[in-house]
Amino acid sequence: MDVSLLTSQAKDAALRLAAAPTSLKNAALMHMAEALEANIPLILRENGRDLENARQNQMSEAMLDRLALSEARIRDMADGVRQVARLADPVGEVVGGERRPNGLNIRKVRVPFGVIAIIYEARPNVTADSAALCLKSGNAVILRGGKEAFRSNNAIAGILSAAVCEAGLPEACIQMVSDTSRETANALMRANGGIDLLIPRGGAGLIRACVENATVPVIQTGTGICHIYVDESADEAMAEDIVFNAKTSRPSVCNACECLLVHRGIAESFLPRMKRRLDEKQVELRCCPSSAAILGGARAATDADYDTEFLDYILAVKVVDSVEDAISHINRHGTGHSECIVTHSLDNARLFQLTVDAAAVYVNASTRFTDGGEFGLGAEIGISTQKMHARGPMGLRELTSCKYLIDGDGHVR
Amino acid sequence: MDVSLLTSQAKDAALRLAAAPTSLKNAALMHMAEALEANIPLILRENGRDLENARQNQMSEAMLDRLALSEARIRDMADGVRQVARLADPVGEVVGGERRPNGLNIRKVRVPFGVIAIIYEARPNVTADSAALCLKSGNAVILRGGKEAFRSNNAIAGILSAAVCEAGLPEACIQMVSDTSRETANALMRANGGIDLLIPRGGAGLIRACVENATVPVIQTGTGICHIYVDESADEAMAEDIVFNAKTSRPSVCNACECLLVHRGIAESFLPRMKRRLDEKQVELRCCPSSAAILGGARAATDADYDTEFLDYILAVKVVDSVEDAISHINRHGTGHSECIVTHSLDNARLFQLTVDAAAVYVNASTRFTDGGEFGLGAEIGISTQKMHARGPMGLRELTSCKYLIDGDGHVR
Repeated sequence: MDVSLLTSQAKDAALRLAAAPTSLKNAALMHMAEALEANIPLILRENGRDLENARQNQMSEAMLDRLALSEARIRDMADGVRQVARLADPVGEVVGGERRPNGLNIRKVRVPFGVIAIIYEARPNVTADSAALCLKSGNAVILRGGKEAFRSNNAIAGILSAAVCEAGLPEACIQMVSDTSRETANALMRANGGIDLLIPRGGAGLIRACVENATVPVIQTGTGICHIYVDESADEAMAEDIVFNAKTSRPSVCNACECLLVHRGIAESFLPRMKRRLDEKQVELRCCPSSAAILGGARAATDADYDTEFLDYILAVKVVDSVEDAISHINRHGTGHSECIVTHSLDNARLFQLTVDAAAVYVNASTRFTDGGEFGLGAEIGISTQKMHARGPMGLRELTSCKYLIDGDGHVR
Repeated sequence: MDVSLLTSQAKDAALRLAAAPTSLKNAALMHMAEALEANIPLILRENGRDLENARQNQMSEAMLDRLALSEARIRDMADGVRQVARLADPVGEVVGGERRPNGLNIRKVRVPFGVIAIIYEARPNVTADSAALCLKSGNAVILRGGKEAFRSNNAIAGILSAAVCEAGLPEACIQMVSDTSRETANALMRANGGIDLLIPRGGAGLIRACVENATVPVIQTGTGICHIYVDESADEAMAEDIVFNAKTSRPSVCNACECLLVHRGIAESFLPRMKRRLDEKQVELRCCPSSAAILGGARAATDADYDTEFLDYILAVKVVDSVEDAISHINRHGTGHSECIVTHSLDNARLFQLTVDAAAVYVNASTRFTDGGEFGLGAEIGISTQKMHARGPMGLRELTSCKYLIDGDGHVR
């Protein structure tokens, strides 16, 4: 697979797209949504072949469910694309500037990155979602999905790029890599000059591989070992609701709580009631010696449990002696995603928000709110857990860079 | 050299520093400046040993000049540190936020990165400069200088970290790597979790090595193959002044002009006068066939000349047929640094600023203005030529990340 051909086509398309007015990009998005709906039978047929293959390869039921499309899911995909059309266009926004003392006029404006590569895993809806967000933010996208969804992804990407072309933008605004080999993925990761940004969307293994191998700029998304610290001054009923929500409302997502820290002064009264509540959902607790003693007969936590993103009905539990202990545990074991303190102490709330090193630091609210929609971004391409460029939910703005436009009248230095 | 010890000390220091009030950081900076001036004899002695070594190793006069310190240069260094103390503190700035419909209060605030590593080359003033900028922006810094300046750098860093400690901040806010081996540099580049950002400051080779080998986030700085395009509608006298300034005012810096593009319609009249002006400084022209024909007997440009950052009194010259040709040449051969059009055409100025893909795009002004001071940032740690996180001159703000602080009242989702 010749990645350089893909990237040079993408570069050319990106130049056209960077100059495209919002109305043209929106028209292309509406075309894309319609084309998805008009081609439901084709997408379902190709998805059926992927599913057949997957069953032959003994894919688990949970994974099959992620892979499977239905008419309703394709219509949801199309609605997602229409929603992106309705979001404000970040390109061209003036984010700073001034007239300098020498009369030079400087403006700092948002511009597209250029070419964004997305490497992702099983779910084929990521294809439409990523293509829409990249197009709206003025970026050409090169998509590389997982082999399980190869036929579904190809069908969707083909439909979308044809629709973009009909709308009057280059077909190469949306390109799908035509194989799923590791070599091609590695070539994308090292296509400096051809790819301006690489975003891996998927599990910890994929993200690690990108961080490890990429020489192009990467934004790490995803992994969340999120903590809730219940302070001595916490309202126990509030803490119980927040922990229950953060652990059980959707355990498979990155903003779910994986570890409960409880101040020693409140542990005797709080832990038993919290356990009763979590028992409703059969949450398995993995406890430090102090919490195990209070709860009696709970499973002991191993060291590894405090560094594990369970993504399941499992919760690590630890009793700590102070807010400082809680913060230090979080800064050692967290992944920089979302962290919460439940407290009535203003001092502890301030200290926690000041010194916990994470994308989103909550006082008295569930970690589950870390989400582009909940933060008012409209849509998100992922949640950045790194500190460079974007941190937390990434919307359209985070898919842009900026440039300085400087206007003079013969100025020399 | 145990890099993990350095990074864990830096992490601890960074946590203290992130919470330090501006007044304390400024007091530390004033201490640092005073300590540099109080230790001029020590610094000069260590610098003398570096110079002696360098002479034995036949270092060129130009390089010796970059390495050499004097009392005046050390006082300049101290003044630079004092200037950083006077700049606004970016940490804590609220850059966004709202009350969501559900009553959740969200603030997005600037925070330090944490631990920044700087790998740099010969000039020892980079030590004080980088240390001051990182400290003010709340980051612990790990410095790794070149072997030529090893003793000078160690002396300066030792003085600075002692001064920081006296001011009441952790000594490990500023750490110098105690060897200059390639292994240690590589270990820094791959210290994920320990280093939040790596900034190489130096030549193209150093930057390439960091981009190639690093798994921690890197900001590419530096390389500038800057173009000036003289449009058919240009004011020839203005174009002459701008090109002369951009090429000759300081040819060794990254914002100097390396390639002149001239519209065919103006080339016959403009090129001879431009050559006469550049002859004042003995600038060597390397010409395309058309410009060589006009100028008669000029040296022919090779393909490589259009991809070379000369950093010298050398200028590549090419005649182009249109503004589109100029843009396409620039987007192919530029390094995304600074590009200029000289024109009276509004349409061509707009097209050029819209579609040239670079950090700074000028209309009728010299590329030499791309500089933190000229842009009003007060000081800069480098000029980013990548699109992620920071583009163009990087001041204190660009040394920060952000985090979301979310305040609820028992909110669950």
